[in-house]
Amino acid sequence: MSATEHFSDRAAGVPRLDALMAPRSVAVVGASNDPTRFGGRILQYLTQSTFSGPVYPVNPGRSEVQGLKAFPSIDELPGAVDCALLAISAEDTEAAVEACIRKGARSAVLFGAGFSEIGAAGAARQARLAEQARAAGLRLLGPNCMGLVNAHAGFYGTFASALEDGLPPPGRIAVASQSGGYGGYLLRHLFLRGLGVSHFVTTGNESDVDIGEVLHWLAGQPDCDVLLGYVEGVRSRDSFVAALELAQRNRKQIVMMKVGRTAEGSAAAASHTASLTGEDAVYDALFRQYGVWRARTSDELLDVAYAASKGRLPQGRRVGVISISGGVGVQIADFVSDAGLTMGAVPEETKAALRELVPNCAPNNPIDMTGSVTNNAELMEKTADAVLAAEAFDAVVVFIGIAGAAPSMAGPLQAALSRAYARHPDKLLFVSVTASPEMVRGYDQQGFLVFEDPARAITALQALTYFQAERERPRSVAAPGSGREPIEIPAGGFNEAAAKALLTKVGVRSPKEALVRSADEAVAAAETIGFPVALKVVSADILHKSDIGGVRLQLRDAAAVRSAFEHMSDVVPARAPEARIDGYLVSEMVVGGVECILGVTTDPVFGPVVTFGLGGVLVELLKDTSCRLAPVSEDEARAMLSELRTAPVLTGYRGEPAHDLDALAKAIAGVSRLAADHAEDLATIEINPLVVRPGDGGVVALDALIEAHKPEQRDGFPAH
Amino acid sequence: MSATEHFSDRAAGVPRLDALMAPRSVAVVGASNDPTRFGGRILQYLTQSTFSGPVYPVNPGRSEVQGLKAFPSIDELPGAVDCALLAISAEDTEAAVEACIRKGARSAVLFGAGFSEIGAAGAARQARLAEQARAAGLRLLGPNCMGLVNAHAGFYGTFASALEDGLPPPGRIAVASQSGGYGGYLLRHLFLRGLGVSHFVTTGNESDVDIGEVLHWLAGQPDCDVLLGYVEGVRSRDSFVAALELAQRNRKQIVMMKVGRTAEGSAAAASHTASLTGEDAVYDALFRQYGVWRARTSDELLDVAYAASKGRLPQGRRVGVISISGGVGVQIADFVSDAGLTMGAVPEETKAALRELVPNCAPNNPIDMTGSVTNNAELMEKTADAVLAAEAFDAVVVFIGIAGAAPSMAGPLQAALSRAYARHPDKLLFVSVTASPEMVRGYDQQGFLVFEDPARAITALQALTYFQAERERPRSVAAPGSGREPIEIPAGGFNEAAAKALLTKVGVRSPKEALVRSADEAVAAAETIGFPVALKVVSADILHKSDIGGVRLQLRDAAAVRSAFEHMSDVVPARAPEARIDGYLVSEMVVGGVECILGVTTDPVFGPVVTFGLGGVLVELLKDTSCRLAPVSEDEARAMLSELRTAPVLTGYRGEPAHDLDALAKAIAGVSRLAADHAEDLATIEINPLVVRPGDGGVVALDALIEAHKPEQRDGFPAH
Repeated sequence: MSATEHFSDRAAGVPRLDALMAPRSVAVVGASNDPTRFGGRILQYLTQSTFSGPVYPVNPGRSEVQGLKAFPSIDELPGAVDCALLAISAEDTEAAVEACIRKGARSAVLFGAGFSEIGAAGAARQARLAEQARAAGLRLLGPNCMGLVNAHAGFYGTFASALEDGLPPPGRIAVASQSGGYGGYLLRHLFLRGLGVSHFVTTGNESDVDIGEVLHWLAGQPDCDVLLGYVEGVRSRDSFVAALELAQRNRKQIVMMKVGRTAEGSAAAASHTASLTGEDAVYDALFRQYGVWRARTSDELLDVAYAASKGRLPQGRRVGVISISGGVGVQIADFVSDAGLTMGAVPEETKAALRELVPNCAPNNPIDMTGSVTNNAELMEKTADAVLAAEAFDAVVVFIGIAGAAPSMAGPLQAALSRAYARHPDKLLFVSVTASPEMVRGYDQQGFLVFEDPARAITALQALTYFQAERERPRSVAAPGSGREPIEIPAGGFNEAAAKALLTKVGVRSPKEALVRSADEAVAAAETIGFPVALKVVSADILHKSDIGGVRLQLRDAAAVRSAFEHMSDVVPARAPEARIDGYLVSEMVVGGVECILGVTTDPVFGPVVTFGLGGVLVELLKDTSCRLAPVSEDEARAMLSELRTAPVLTGYRGEPAHDLDALAKAIAGVSRLAADHAEDLATIEINPLVVRPGDGGVVALDALIEAHKPEQRDGFPAH
Repeated sequence: MSATEHFSDRAAGVPRLDALMAPRSVAVVGASNDPTRFGGRILQYLTQSTFSGPVYPVNPGRSEVQGLKAFPSIDELPGAVDCALLAISAEDTEAAVEACIRKGARSAVLFGAGFSEIGAAGAARQARLAEQARAAGLRLLGPNCMGLVNAHAGFYGTFASALEDGLPPPGRIAVASQSGGYGGYLLRHLFLRGLGVSHFVTTGNESDVDIGEVLHWLAGQPDCDVLLGYVEGVRSRDSFVAALELAQRNRKQIVMMKVGRTAEGSAAAASHTASLTGEDAVYDALFRQYGVWRARTSDELLDVAYAASKGRLPQGRRVGVISISGGVGVQIADFVSDAGLTMGAVPEETKAALRELVPNCAPNNPIDMTGSVTNNAELMEKTADAVLAAEAFDAVVVFIGIAGAAPSMAGPLQAALSRAYARHPDKLLFVSVTASPEMVRGYDQQGFLVFEDPARAITALQALTYFQAERERPRSVAAPGSGREPIEIPAGGFNEAAAKALLTKVGVRSPKEALVRSADEAVAAAETIGFPVALKVVSADILHKSDIGGVRLQLRDAAAVRSAFEHMSDVVPARAPEARIDGYLVSEMVVGGVECILGVTTDPVFGPVVTFGLGGVLVELLKDTSCRLAPVSEDEARAMLSELRTAPVLTGYRGEPAHDLDALAKAIAGVSRLAADHAEDLATIEINPLVVRPGDGGVVALDALIEAHKPEQRDGFPAH
């Protein structure tokens, strides 16, 4: 994609970070001649690089540092400073930031530790700095970070030891990491793999600039295609979501590691970052919503970034496997299936062609060409050519294992595969080979993807297939809200009737029902609604009604209704003497359908999150639910349903009828819209059960619970 | 373990393979001077090795091959031959096998292809050879295999190109693979990792010796500790199960890759090996039953074998993490949790000690010691020492990342960690470091475990923890059967009443019930049993009774029973005119409890397999069932229950009562015993639902289906 086609990052209203990320002039405060000191190493990288703007070393004791004219203070610098790199201690930072402000510097990078990560005193120091900078319009990166690199601009504002063996070649992968240490680790691994880097940014304590802003800026850059992110916890929803949206519009692939997936990890992250991290499941939902690939391990993170950096995506899920060992072919078929991909069927004419090449081959997929093809480059070329040419595969995996490392054969095999690949530019080719790093590099330079273990090749292919599917997925925007007319929160909170009334406004109907206060009223209501009916106590103070005899179902006639009312109005007040009882609800019995749960909770970072799943204890145990940030469109609601392993129960399993998925998608979208429009007011919504009826029978909320935020929390979550 | 403590492999009655696996004399038929030919390469390896017995090259055209006296034919060999290595074409093999038999050779290895893997003609040739050899007592390995190695004996009967760079050092890992190609791949990777090998055996088409026999022989050898297996499909239950049992008794760890896990892979395996492979879930069950670690990828297979080869197992699940980056610490905490391990709590005195070493460290687990410890070997030693000494961790993971590769620091860090480790021989230490292969070797030689990606370290630790837990798990043998008195199979098959009667014999009770043939009998029976009752038609020909009105529940009085009987005896014969109706069953209504499914199916390889899970469509969709080869003991039945994610429904979830697990374990054991004792007769058993009642209420089979094998299949599956 050319620069002109790029959507600008200005559109979203996120402040631009150009002065920090692509400065035209740089000061190194604490510059040193000693490359083992931070201020020495930073300056060394900068002087080795192709940075074209002025670099000002600041050091009160020297007139020259590393061959550049040095200045005794920030105030005495001879020109404007876009970015000041502060390689100084925490104690000296406050004065330096003040000087930056006086000088009119536009951004500063704070490398030093000794801030919020060490406790209350450090946090207070960090807050003072951030406040000062914010007031003056000075953007801060860090503190406690490893700085940043803009390779295409030759700007190296980092002391990362990962660069000691050389600066990585400028490339199209951008790295954004909250952790400096792990960011450096990734940088080193990209270098070891020979992968080029466009940007490298670490945000550390995020006193000002956060990971979302960095990703958003990167998503607007034409000189990177792949964003590789490492996140411990997001501080602000808006910049992060804006970044994912912009990356999607600009067709950049994001590969992300978000740690703290598990309870153990989350506890560790909280104590490490001392920030609210949000529920992990919400990150999963967000990543799915925006087509981000979430990597579990460093290997996977780097593998997927590598694969995405080649710039080809598969057009479908059909994989062809060429192996020199039947056993490994079977293994790869397993990996293909694990990944949700399929083994394509080899066309008969391709089989015939393969048999002509190697008479004792096994031409069914996985294709076993025996060792012959690794002893004869021409056979390899013709084999790869025949399989790539077959209109049966979107990606082809060639396993040559240890046979590809024979010094006499590696070159010819590389060339053979390269020639075949060049003739099929719409297909993907993976080569699985065991060889020395240099020899692997030789394979890699042919343009196809190279992995040692075929399992990792298939995981990378799975990610590329996901990226392509996400590009093609309908991604309608959630419908606009109902004008956000304010809702009234009942003084004592929402009882069931009030909750259901509010839900009716967004199109989720309840059973026919009537609030009654006497046995006579109950019987009359039941006769209007039609038997059988249910009877329930109505009270905002009683959460588990059935536990105290507050629910009776399947009342078949007037006598049963009367008797049930008399008994319930007797025992419930006795068993819950503190509860304020608003009356009793006579309801239509809803028969048939599948009981589900639809709910909204408020995430401390991301605000309202809508969750859907089938009802019942088994689904709870097996954790088969799906969630999204609210609001969601009906399309996205359908995507949520398709993620459930229990979805067949709704779509019609074993001859059962299909249920009303249109109405269900509408209900999910409507409830999510309600929650998003009124995020300031509503803390939780739970419809349990929501009955989804067969055919076009719609959905019915049998019970509903809505809780408002406590008044003091109402400002926390603005509406989206 | 010393050799004398080893259980012999003779005990199990499996024929010994010494002549093949540890021959005292070897002939190479097809011996050649050209090391690029199979017969040349095999002889080359043998002459390079320390094999102490005679090696006889056989070549009709030469008097000397590779410096050894050659013989024109097998018949003319001057001495006895334990093992003949037949490096000849499929066409020549039959005559060579005949000559081996004439000569009295005890085993032969058939390398050549052109047998069952190429179709019917090859399969017939293979069957003829196998029959000839079997009759003469000549054991065959292969055909279509890569031969074998016994490194401690210096016996190299293989042409594996993986050995071209040198024979691997004799070690304690044995490799057994059905695939020659993949076996060679593993051998090469073990060599690249510097790991020693004791044996390497590939079984190819398994005309005679199968993978189970090989594993069984290896399990009896004192000179290996770790068995690394690759399996596509087992041909015979007995040798395979005997191998797992013997390995367990001799405390050898088995790491196994079984391919064809998925439908796609299984289809590929079947077409590749042309043999019945058995249901993949059965392998899972078998591996769990015998404490085998099943690896999914080659990396995992090799990682776990490497970790197990060090010979230390963790004594518990508590992990301590020392990191130089907070972010990576959080990542590792996630991996620990994923693996079912726990992050141990750092004792206060350890925290104090760590703060004394590095004042700004974060001493909670994961412990972040900052980069200080990688710049100062003494600090590293003291840190590792303090954490290993704390009685809080069974294993410690040190992440030093790219900092461990600095040439000046690698040596001192290795020595520091080595000294600390030596002082805590009961603990496990993992080091996660990014460095060159040579430098990694340097770390590895200190005795602790070295991995680059910490995710892989934790997977290896998970496997070691599993091995230790499996050693400690009670593993009672299934109770002996009831003397295997023959059971009578009703002429028309088992109807529900007959099935329930048979289950009652193994202690699984049914509801109180009576078979009736008239409305009067039905009412009388209901009055004896007590209301409410259920009424069901009894017919072996009707599988889905409720579909045709053959089931009525909750009949509360005599009138209801009479009316139900009259209606049912009217409609059922009309709707199922072909069915033979044996009468109607009046049953006690069982209330309360959890509905489950207990069943037995017959696997084509492994025979009867018992499966248990909760009832209902959700469990089916979410595939939460557990199975084992029959019979199982009650202990093993409890282990089955503990594997279910839905187990809390039985053990008491959210204030619900616990259910009768004792009775359930007895029922699973009893039914599995029935199936095993009568494997010749019974094909399937399905109790659905089996109601497990609260407290000590026992279990009740509400419905039961038993199918006998068709008469012609009855001989297939002998009782165990």
